[in-house]
This record gives sequence, C-alpha cells and structure tokens, in this order.
Amino acid sequence: MRTRVGIIGAGPAGLYLSHLLHRSGIESVVLERRDRDYCERRQRAGIVEHGVAEALIAAGVGTRMEREGFRHEGIELRFGGQARRIDFTALTGRSVRLYPQTEIVRDLIARRIADDGRLLFEAEASAIEGAETDRPRIHFTHDGTEQVLECDYVVACDGFHGIGRASLPSDVVRTFEKVYPFGWLGILADVPPSCDELIYAHHPRGFALHSMRSESVSRLYLQVPNGTDAADWSDEQIWDELSARFALRSGGWELKRGPITDKSVTPMRSFVTEPMRHGRLFLAGDSAHIVPPTGAKGLNLAMNDVMLLAEALVAEDRRGTTELLDAYSDTALRRIWRAMHFSFWMTTLLHTLPEDDAFDQRLRLSHLEHIAASPAAATHLAENYTGIPRI
Amino acid sequence: MRTRVGIIGAGPAGLYLSHLLHRSGIESVVLERRDRDYCERRQRAGIVEHGVAEALIAAGVGTRMEREGFRHEGIELRFGGQARRIDFTALTGRSVRLYPQTEIVRDLIARRIADDGRLLFEAEASAIEGAETDRPRIHFTHDGTEQVLECDYVVACDGFHGIGRASLPSDVVRTFEKVYPFGWLGILADVPPSCDELIYAHHPRGFALHSMRSESVSRLYLQVPNGTDAADWSDEQIWDELSARFALRSGGWELKRGPITDKSVTPMRSFVTEPMRHGRLFLAGDSAHIVPPTGAKGLNLAMNDVMLLAEALVAEDRRGTTELLDAYSDTALRRIWRAMHFSFWMTTLLHTLPEDDAFDQRLRLSHLEHIAASPAAATHLAENYTGIPRI
Repeated sequence: MRTRVGIIGAGPAGLYLSHLLHRSGIESVVLERRDRDYCERRQRAGIVEHGVAEALIAAGVGTRMEREGFRHEGIELRFGGQARRIDFTALTGRSVRLYPQTEIVRDLIARRIADDGRLLFEAEASAIEGAETDRPRIHFTHDGTEQVLECDYVVACDGFHGIGRASLPSDVVRTFEKVYPFGWLGILADVPPSCDELIYAHHPRGFALHSMRSESVSRLYLQVPNGTDAADWSDEQIWDELSARFALRSGGWELKRGPITDKSVTPMRSFVTEPMRHGRLFLAGDSAHIVPPTGAKGLNLAMNDVMLLAEALVAEDRRGTTELLDAYSDTALRRIWRAMHFSFWMTTLLHTLPEDDAFDQRLRLSHLEHIAASPAAATHLAENYTGIPRI
Repeated sequence: MRTRVGIIGAGPAGLYLSHLLHRSGIESVVLERRDRDYCERRQRAGIVEHGVAEALIAAGVGTRMEREGFRHEGIELRFGGQARRIDFTALTGRSVRLYPQTEIVRDLIARRIADDGRLLFEAEASAIEGAETDRPRIHFTHDGTEQVLECDYVVACDGFHGIGRASLPSDVVRTFEKVYPFGWLGILADVPPSCDELIYAHHPRGFALHSMRSESVSRLYLQVPNGTDAADWSDEQIWDELSARFALRSGGWELKRGPITDKSVTPMRSFVTEPMRHGRLFLAGDSAHIVPPTGAKGLNLAMNDVMLLAEALVAEDRRGTTELLDAYSDTALRRIWRAMHFSFWMTTLLHTLPEDDAFDQRLRLSHLEHIAASPAAATHLAENYTGIPRI
C-alpha cells in the first residue's frame, strides 16, 4: 500500500490532519488500532479553543459543533466560599466552545468516510522504518495480515503509548516530565449541569471542577490522591464531597445530583518530547506531549500541531519547499511550552499539594484574589485559556 | 515621659509615621537604639513605589527625592541572552523612583528635628507593657538610665529582630515563613551604572540584578548559595560573574567595572505575622513581615503600613472612632499578602533553584517569554512592581 502521508491514530489530531490534507488534494491513509465504535465512544476533553473552533468551522467540519455545542464566554473561579467570574469575551474578545472531543471524532470520521478517505480501523501499526530516507514505511497488521504502508511522510498521532515517539532514535530525543501527586476522580452523571459555565473550585479539601457534556449530562471532577481507586468512592460520597468543595459561603447555590453513569480516575502528568520530528517522521498531539487537564489544553495542542503540519505539508506539495516542515518542531514547541506553563500554573493554583504549608496556602489565596480583582491577572488566565492566537 | 503615640524604631516607617502624626497635630516620641549616624548610613532598598513617592511629596518630605531621585518608567528583563523591557508607564500609567532608603531616612530625620519632633537616638526599648490597657508603656534605656514612656498607643517599627513582635502573646499570633536556599551577594561600586533602568537577569548560573545608587555609584547583586561568605569572592570574580550573567547574545553591551566599596551577603526570607495588632500595640514594616528583595517591596510595605496607621490614629484623635484601628491588621495584610505573592513569584521566576529539573527550566523560560510577549502578563508584573493603588 502506498500514500503521500501515512497517519497513525484516528483521534482528533490524525483525523483532522487527514481531512485538511484531503482538502488540499493530498492523499493520506489513517491507521487506527481500535474499532470505529471504540473511537467514537472514548470520553476525553470538552473545551475547544477559540482559534481551533474557528478553524474547524472554516474547514467545513464544525457544522454540528456550531449547532449543538455551547459557546462559553467565561469560567467561574470559586475559592474562600466565593464565586468570581472570569469574563473571557470582555477580557480578550474570544470565547471557547463546549463540545466533547468524542463528538469531534464522530464528525471527522463521518466526513472522512463521506469523502472516501482511507481510514483503516483495527489496523495496528507495529513499526516505522526509514524515517531518515525519502520513503518511510509503516508496518501494520490489518485483517489478520501484516502489511506495509509506504509513504512520503509519516505523522504519528498515536498518543502517549503509541509507537511514534518510540521510533525516534533515543540519542536525538530529550524528554521533560513532571508527575503530580494527585489525580482526578471524574464522573459522568445524568443530571442537568448546576451551572452554565465551568466552575473551577479551590477548596482546602482539594480542587473540584464542574463541567458538562450536554444540557442533560454533567461531568464533574474531584482532586484525589494518587493511588485512589474509583470503586472506593460511593456515589453518595462523591456527591457529598463535590457539594462541600463547591459550597458558597452565602448559600444560594446547590449542586444537582443524579445517577452516576461513569466513574474513573485520571492521573496528572506534564510531558514533552523534543524534537517532534526525525527525518520524515513527525509527532503530533499526545504522542509528543501531555498536559494535566486543568487548563483544557490537550485536545487544543493536538489540533494546533496538525494545523501546522497540514500547512507545512501543503507547502511542500505545492512548492516543494520543506521550510515549514523543518520549522515544525520549533514552532509547535513554542505553543506547547506556553500550554505546559499555563497548565502547570492552573494546576498548582487550584489544587492542594501535600507539601503545602500555611504560607503556601495564604499565597495561593492572595493569588486567586488578585486574579479576581486585577484585569491584567484575569486576562493572563483568559488569553491562555481561550488560546493565544499567534505564538 | 508621656506621649500620645510611642514609636519604636527610627527607620523609614517609624520616622514617617511620626511625621504624618505631627502634621495632624498628634504628638509622638520615636525611640531608636542606634545613633543618628548609623541610621543615616544603613544601606537598604532603593525603589519607591509610585503611590509611596506621591505620598512623600504630598506630605512635604519628598523635595530632595524629586530633585535627586530618578524616575524609572520600566525595568529590563534579561534571559536567554536577550533584553526585554517592561514599560511600566505604558502598561499602568505609573512609575517608580530610584531613591535610596538611607536618603529617605536622612530627609525624615532632618524634618523631624526641624519640626522639634521628639526623636531619641541610642534609646533602647526593652519591654512593652499593658498593651491590653488604655495606657501601654515602653520601658527603655537612654543616657544610661532606665525610663518609661507612657502612651495611648504603641507602634513597633523596630524590624524583624525588635521587641515589638515578641511582645504579642504567643497564643494570639500565627506566623508564616519561607526560607530560600540562596541569598544575594550585593556590592556597591564607584562606577557609573551600565544602564538607565534596573536589569533583572535570569541566567542558568543564577539571578543577577543591576541597580544603582546615583549617577556615579552602581549597586549590583548576584544570587549565591546559602552559607556563602562575601570574603570568598574576589572583586574580579564578582565582576566576571556579573558580566557572564548579564551577557547579551548579540553582544553590544558591556558591564562597566570599578572599585568595589562594599560587599555583603543578604539571606532571602518571606515572613508574615498575623495579626499585626494586640490591644494598643501595633506592628508595622519589618517587625511584622519580611519579603525577599526581588520585588522591591520591603520599604514600600512598611510605608504603606504606617500610612494606614496614621490615617487610623488621626480618625481616633479627631472623631474618637477606632474603626480604622480595628481594621488595620486585616487591611494591611491584604496588601502584604499581595506583596508576599508577588515577591515570591518574582523570586522563583528569576532565580535558579537547586531542585530545578529540565522541565522547570523550560517552564521558566516560557513564562519569561510570555511576560515579554503578552501585555497582560507584563501588566501583572508592572502593576505589582509599581504598587497596586487600592487593595
């Protein structure tokens, strides 16, 4: 099998790249080890940056997002029993969309299939060969047979545990990592959200986040210590703890409860690989970098990576220039490190840390109060959260 | 001896408080354990916040500062071999004054003496009695005799090691502290400054600061590990290290060298006492709080404390209301915690920490680049550095 661009992974990054290339007349093949149903059900992020949403719409794959998604013009910070809104639109002119990643994946799969895109499910890539040559090859297994995909370029959008990153020679790679001493216990519940926008709560007992999937499904998270088993938390314990962490001093706000349909613990990690390219093999999204979910940056970074790559591959295709491909890693990493810092900042701002002493707690409260009081400090949050246009 | 307000310490805070009270017709006595010459020579901070400078001018003690001080409308950040200016005036409409604390002390002493203020040098306070009564008393030794100063109120501006803080009952006091694993090796040198505004440099070898005392005297600092003895650094080593940390990638800038006239190591600490008041005893300045010098907040916090106290004591004198006195501790602590956070933030942003790994280093560079690129992030620095007007 042969194609211009071999893409490993049918997550939002791989699918969107394939779609963008198709729009520019560049053919690609997407290899995905899972089946379609699994891909379309995987629960992931839900917040789409302003610029990513605009790009999806401009690329003709944002129609359902525009119709069914929700435009969020701010978030609420809760701390010290008080609620303070950060008004993104007033501060930056930008907003975000609440539209679950799994819906983006559905839209992109449907569109790739409608466009006769070559999208192979249950096709497990096992090796990338010849990244330093003009004809890199992906070995994969599909329908029980071993096959080879010959490409001009390979893009690995195969996540943190994929073969993409592992295929870069270890002597050219540098990795950066931070593991946090806590994770998120996340639930999906069949209950209308108790708020219109996301609530990020800092409480002495830990962080809590109120998000939503739709008008009838809430998504909520609790900071829990590493090693927590979701099964050890009863539904009632979860609701009680959420209620305690979201409580307002003034009262007048109540967390609606409903049946919990999903319960799981996500660990928190920051991770970066440099460079994101070796020869004709490129990394995008989680294959190269992981952020803790506090800043809602994971999906958005992945989409920004493949937008850069699509532009670079189109430039190579049209004009034979590899300038943008050569610059890809450095260009992408500027935004990635910005998001790394922002995600770390949001995480340490809002969570409680085991090593916190009374001084750290007071500093954090002063920091939160300053964000609520200072337009400059609030804008720093808002401009990073909604996505910095050019970096 | 009897007075309305007994003030311990003839640093800038105690002297300024005494002056402000005098302007409102409230008499006070300042007790200072050192002699006048010592007070007038002590080298301390040099940056005066916008609002503090305006207040000094409005109170009639800013004439020489206006004439001989320098208005600084920004600072320079250096990192990654590049120079980026933070333009305070463009970002906030405010500026700071470079005017050494020791000059403020000289001005205030001269003014208190000209106004026949009761200012006792070599008067060492040994105990504060009766803070919970209407007639607190300060025991002190002067001219070899033990004496008692009876007051309506006692204000301790006697620094970190003074008797003021120690006189609060331990069961009402809560302290917060952070000790940093480094200090500043500071020098005074008889050489014109190599810059017009302060340069805050972050370098893999550590932080460096270029400040100045006048057009012919430079003040420079190097981050050094705790336990460093200034005597272990030769003048040449100091200049070489400073040159390395300030070096620009593009060249074109050179650090001027000259005779070093003073060399000392300052440890770095954050410290807060809560509350800052017990009965009729009030704490102000370093007696209640210490910041690392990175944010130039120590002098300014002390001056802000006594401006609040003067207003509160005048309200009590004029209208018999203790409302502002009762609110003093909470009001002052809001600004103090803001400055604590800002000073901690500037310190960790610009210094290298022993526990830093490659991830932390990259985060810090992304943070510095963002401050240089984002007006919001730069304004956060500028608004805190120049002093937040109301808090």
